[in-house]
Amino acid sequence: MHKVAIFGAAGYGGIELIRLLLAHPDVEITYLAGHTTVGEELTDLYPHLRGKLDLPIGETSVNRAIAQADLLFSCLPHAVGAELVAEALDKDLRVVDFSADFRLKDASVYEQYYRPHPVPDLLAEAVYGLPELHRAEIATARLVAVPGCYSTGAILALAPAAQAALVAPRAIIVDSKSGVSGAGRSNLTLTTHFAEVNESLAAYKVAQHRHGPEIDQELSAWGEEIRVTFVPHLIPITRGILTTAYATLREGISLAQVQQVYANSYADEPFVQVMPAGRQPATKQVSGSNQCYLGLAVDDPANQLIVTSAIDNLIKGLSGAAVQCMNLMLGLPETTSLEAPALWP
Amino acid sequence: MHKVAIFGAAGYGGIELIRLLLAHPDVEITYLAGHTTVGEELTDLYPHLRGKLDLPIGETSVNRAIAQADLLFSCLPHAVGAELVAEALDKDLRVVDFSADFRLKDASVYEQYYRPHPVPDLLAEAVYGLPELHRAEIATARLVAVPGCYSTGAILALAPAAQAALVAPRAIIVDSKSGVSGAGRSNLTLTTHFAEVNESLAAYKVAQHRHGPEIDQELSAWGEEIRVTFVPHLIPITRGILTTAYATLREGISLAQVQQVYANSYADEPFVQVMPAGRQPATKQVSGSNQCYLGLAVDDPANQLIVTSAIDNLIKGLSGAAVQCMNLMLGLPETTSLEAPALWP
Amino acid sequence: MHKVAIFGAAGYGGIELIRLLLAHPDVEITYLAGHTTVGEELTDLYPHLRGKLDLPIGETSVNRAIAQADLLFSCLPHAVGAELVAEALDKDLRVVDFSADFRLKDASVYEQYYRPHPVPDLLAEAVYGLPELHRAEIATARLVAVPGCYSTGAILALAPAAQAALVAPRAIIVDSKSGVSGAGRSNLTLTTHFAEVNESLAAYKVAQHRHGPEIDQELSAWGEEIRVTFVPHLIPITRGILTTAYATLREGISLAQVQQVYANSYADEPFVQVMPAGRQPATKQVSGSNQCYLGLAVDDPANQLIVTSAIDNLIKGLSGAAVQCMNLMLGLPETTSLEAPALWP
Amino acid sequence: MHKVAIFGAAGYGGIELIRLLLAHPDVEITYLAGHTTVGEELTDLYPHLRGKLDLPIGETSVNRAIAQADLLFSCLPHAVGAELVAEALDKDLRVVDFSADFRLKDASVYEQYYRPHPVPDLLAEAVYGLPELHRAEIATARLVAVPGCYSTGAILALAPAAQAALVAPRAIIVDSKSGVSGAGRSNLTLTTHFAEVNESLAAYKVAQHRHGPEIDQELSAWGEEIRVTFVPHLIPITRGILTTAYATLREGISLAQVQQVYANSYADEPFVQVMPAGRQPATKQVSGSNQCYLGLAVDDPANQLIVTSAIDNLIKGLSGAAVQCMNLMLGLPETTSLEAPALWP
Repeated sequence: MHKVAIFGAAGYGGIELIRLLLAHPDVEITYLAGHTTVGEELTDLYPHLRGKLDLPIGETSVNRAIAQADLLFSCLPHAVGAELVAEALDKDLRVVDFSADFRLKDASVYEQYYRPHPVPDLLAEAVYGLPELHRAEIATARLVAVPGCYSTGAILALAPAAQAALVAPRAIIVDSKSGVSGAGRSNLTLTTHFAEVNESLAAYKVAQHRHGPEIDQELSAWGEEIRVTFVPHLIPITRGILTTAYATLREGISLAQVQQVYANSYADEPFVQVMPAGRQPATKQVSGSNQCYLGLAVDDPANQLIVTSAIDNLIKGLSGAAVQCMNLMLGLPETTSLEAPALWP
Repeated sequence: MHKVAIFGAAGYGGIELIRLLLAHPDVEITYLAGHTTVGEELTDLYPHLRGKLDLPIGETSVNRAIAQADLLFSCLPHAVGAELVAEALDKDLRVVDFSADFRLKDASVYEQYYRPHPVPDLLAEAVYGLPELHRAEIATARLVAVPGCYSTGAILALAPAAQAALVAPRAIIVDSKSGVSGAGRSNLTLTTHFAEVNESLAAYKVAQHRHGPEIDQELSAWGEEIRVTFVPHLIPITRGILTTAYATLREGISLAQVQQVYANSYADEPFVQVMPAGRQPATKQVSGSNQCYLGLAVDDPANQLIVTSAIDNLIKGLSGAAVQCMNLMLGLPETTSLEAPALWP
Repeated sequence: MHKVAIFGAAGYGGIELIRLLLAHPDVEITYLAGHTTVGEELTDLYPHLRGKLDLPIGETSVNRAIAQADLLFSCLPHAVGAELVAEALDKDLRVVDFSADFRLKDASVYEQYYRPHPVPDLLAEAVYGLPELHRAEIATARLVAVPGCYSTGAILALAPAAQAALVAPRAIIVDSKSGVSGAGRSNLTLTTHFAEVNESLAAYKVAQHRHGPEIDQELSAWGEEIRVTFVPHLIPITRGILTTAYATLREGISLAQVQQVYANSYADEPFVQVMPAGRQPATKQVSGSNQCYLGLAVDDPANQLIVTSAIDNLIKGLSGAAVQCMNLMLGLPETTSLEAPALWP
Repeated sequence: MHKVAIFGAAGYGGIELIRLLLAHPDVEITYLAGHTTVGEELTDLYPHLRGKLDLPIGETSVNRAIAQADLLFSCLPHAVGAELVAEALDKDLRVVDFSADFRLKDASVYEQYYRPHPVPDLLAEAVYGLPELHRAEIATARLVAVPGCYSTGAILALAPAAQAALVAPRAIIVDSKSGVSGAGRSNLTLTTHFAEVNESLAAYKVAQHRHGPEIDQELSAWGEEIRVTFVPHLIPITRGILTTAYATLREGISLAQVQQVYANSYADEPFVQVMPAGRQPATKQVSGSNQCYLGLAVDDPANQLIVTSAIDNLIKGLSGAAVQCMNLMLGLPETTSLEAPALWP
């Protein structure tokens, strides 16, 4: 039985991670740490876990985690936990990090979107935790950075097209629509106030969102430098991201060919499904699951490839991805505790 | 490995049953039958199940079910499957029935709310599938009738008070609020049209709903005849029923005593949780789980006991209850495949 | 043209009041005051008002209000504005107050639910701003207290029954369901966080909510002392309150008689509609309007009268009621600027 | 007082038209016609209109309309009312048509998306009812075709860029997100079932939706033939369309220049607002109003112009546009009965 500790356990990422790990036969949660919640019982904060995990919330201390765990999930926000992650690695604790701190390879890009990087030397070693692109490296990594939720949906939507050079590397549009849970639990602002968000739609951080550079980095892995125009939108649902990606097809490529390339790319992937031609995924089809569903279409007169992807932002877009990486790191079957289908309806 | 067949597999009750059984280590789904969907692949109707259960939908035939299963779940609507249930029992197939056909003991009450009962002789034998009240009988039953979704929430809220005679048997109010999935999938009317239901609330079938007599029947098991005033409301959520029950406390009974009676009643129940004094459950705390959460309060000046109960109408209120009964009937641990906590958020 | 000032203009009550007054042909808004928003343009906070009202937000100063207005709307929270109201009255400015400060006649009840009353001498003079019960007094009042949103729905549901003594004065249940806008705009807590509220239902402040004593006070106006058990619930909609009230009918009173009493009571009321027998109102039918819709039913075997009422909590439950009172106070037609029907769908 | 008749009065377009006309001081509704609802009282179908318009629903007869009205609103679905419109024009009744039948100038394009056009001779005469582009022609038209709801949002977002040739005419993406009311009231399918739509997002009719050719037709008015890739999405809100449009900026054009061009284009438009640089509209800011709000941004490295537009699909996207056209046709002030701001929240 592997033992894991969780920092930032009381946020949405932490709580969803706990739910998934509670169903995991080979992993035990031995330590929980929080920030404003130290000393509280997890089940007082989250009554839905009554009887499932009676652990108090302790301090965010690497030494305590090491005393009780073989692997650390750091669910701390961006720019809060980087030094702790470095300390944990120094003390031989493997880490799966939920923040943006170790996703970007280029410290100057990181600095542009966040702050000067406190431990830039770790960037080269950290592995981007998208198993569909980095499975082998994740298995042996000491430090895995879980991708941004938007990034996962966008990268899985476009990677086969980029890899097979089906599309031009410019004028790629990524129009994403996210539920409100992506803002996190401690984010109590007017943009999460029910009466302001409900029955409304809006774009935000147009072409300025911090997940943009992640998408570019990962899609540029096959020779051509790709840069997308990324526009996120806030949608009044709790869970789910739908991404609609647009790219100009190279001459003479048909929808059938695209469909074949995608089917081949993801043939062995347990968590990516390419829908039959003519069908588009709905986020509800993956809500509560670790699946990413993809739908393909081509606007022939405009030569535009249109790919839609649907994920649950808190599972495949966050905590499920973290468990998937953990399974790989620990040599467990990759799908363990991640096989539940969506709840419907 | 036990084998089960499902009639009415493509409705919301059927599909939720399938989800729960897919995670069950001791049960295999071997036959699916539908009505308007014969010949279709389940995963074409429900893409969220892609790769999980590749069974076609067959005809609603008892003989086919018997050929492949030891137990039949009949998820057919009221007044559609009663004769099929009788045929299945004749041929030694045990049945868990989702309809209202075998819940009421009194055929004349059934007739008043539904139609003349086609097989009234079975009413005496059928067991009301609420394990908290009928665990032993369910274990040996040939025919179990899953309670109405409203009934489960109301009965669990009031049973300890009725059993311990804490409250007067008259002027009991059951004010229930249900999500829209309770209307079923094939119910395409203005009352399930998103644009009509969303951002709205209303009562319906005031004091005339068919779950009222079920509640009365079960709460009258301890000597006093109880009759509740039952008013259901439609709420713009997908899953969940919150029931607020009001009853006049007998002289001199305090909230602390009530809390103790409830705690004792449900001490050994895996799926009923009495919240600490002063806390009220939210449906989201049980959404996706088989739990029923109860909150207790007393309005002292008015001598009113107020009990709120929260369930997921499709799990504890329907398909989870069915699996719980099946576990008992098959001699399996009662909680198998039902231990998942709610998704949060 | 009458001139009015608004304190607390940037909250939901203030902004809805502004919307209604913008359509009022006889009233001009001349002064806006805020708390944290002094110096900002209203339309920066509320872009939906662009081009409609280009007024900056000033300080909450009675002298400034007097300089520019004949009547003051004080939309400040409970326990913030009472002294300002007193000051305004001293300086001959008539006031419509949105807070709870002047609704209760008994300072000791106020103290029990809020704090010691700072200006208890004004309680006798203040008029409870429910035109259906206090029309004549409102017309000549210096100080009108707009009722609590829950109170309006509950009182209008039960007043004819109380006045005609159709029901017993005890064991009256008021089960209310409110949208989230009732919590206000500045209330940024987990109970207004979209991801926590959406797809959930819960009761709160069971039998302890501060609108309970208002309901009792107003329903006790006809000789019998009435005390209700009041339980509010939070529902994931933005606007609307549905109240389901239960009371024991006195011997021998039929639904037809009840229907007649209610029809007579409200025959001349422009903003209360009694639905035909057998129909229940939905909140959406009044959302965006100043209407209160009522539905009547009787549970004969239990002798229970069931009344449901639907209002828009921000209009008939708050700002619309305030405008209705203002119209009376200024001698204008009572319905001016309040005649819009609900938006549907 | 002008008199108008309405065909198809009981659908969402009709009912919203009625709401707007009830507040119109110069227009009286004198005749209502329905299809499945003939003989019913409008207020039985729509209780929110009780006391507002007590008209029965009559037959869809041009002669009856002529007998009582000077102008006909035909809110019939596509391919149902074209012959009736022709008959009305023959008999000198001016018509505002809600369907797609008279929007496209090219009968062969119409046929490709709908059916062979029954009265193609009228296409040349019909005026596309977007006042921002066709104000003068609308004023004198006998037949005005109200634009598709998606089309209005897309055209207003891109027209200034097209007119000023700020962008390349190819690789223009229009990613639109619509609430469910756009599907209409009689559309009772799984795609409007609350439990299927709520908490979900999906694209549909990808690059095949019938509003695409309308957008192309109108944006091609200034010399360059424009063809957009149009992808609609269904969002779980009742009202509102948010459109995010992407186009490649021509060399050397800055956001400031774009902002200026748009400000100039819409300077005199009462119902189009260009937001300050850096702000994006939310649909809730226009919900309940006839406004279209526009937000501008540029992704500099990719040279992409991004325009977001927000409208209420039932008002500026349908019935409000119809009233705006009617005002022009009747020589009334264009904004009459259309000045209400959005409801907030």
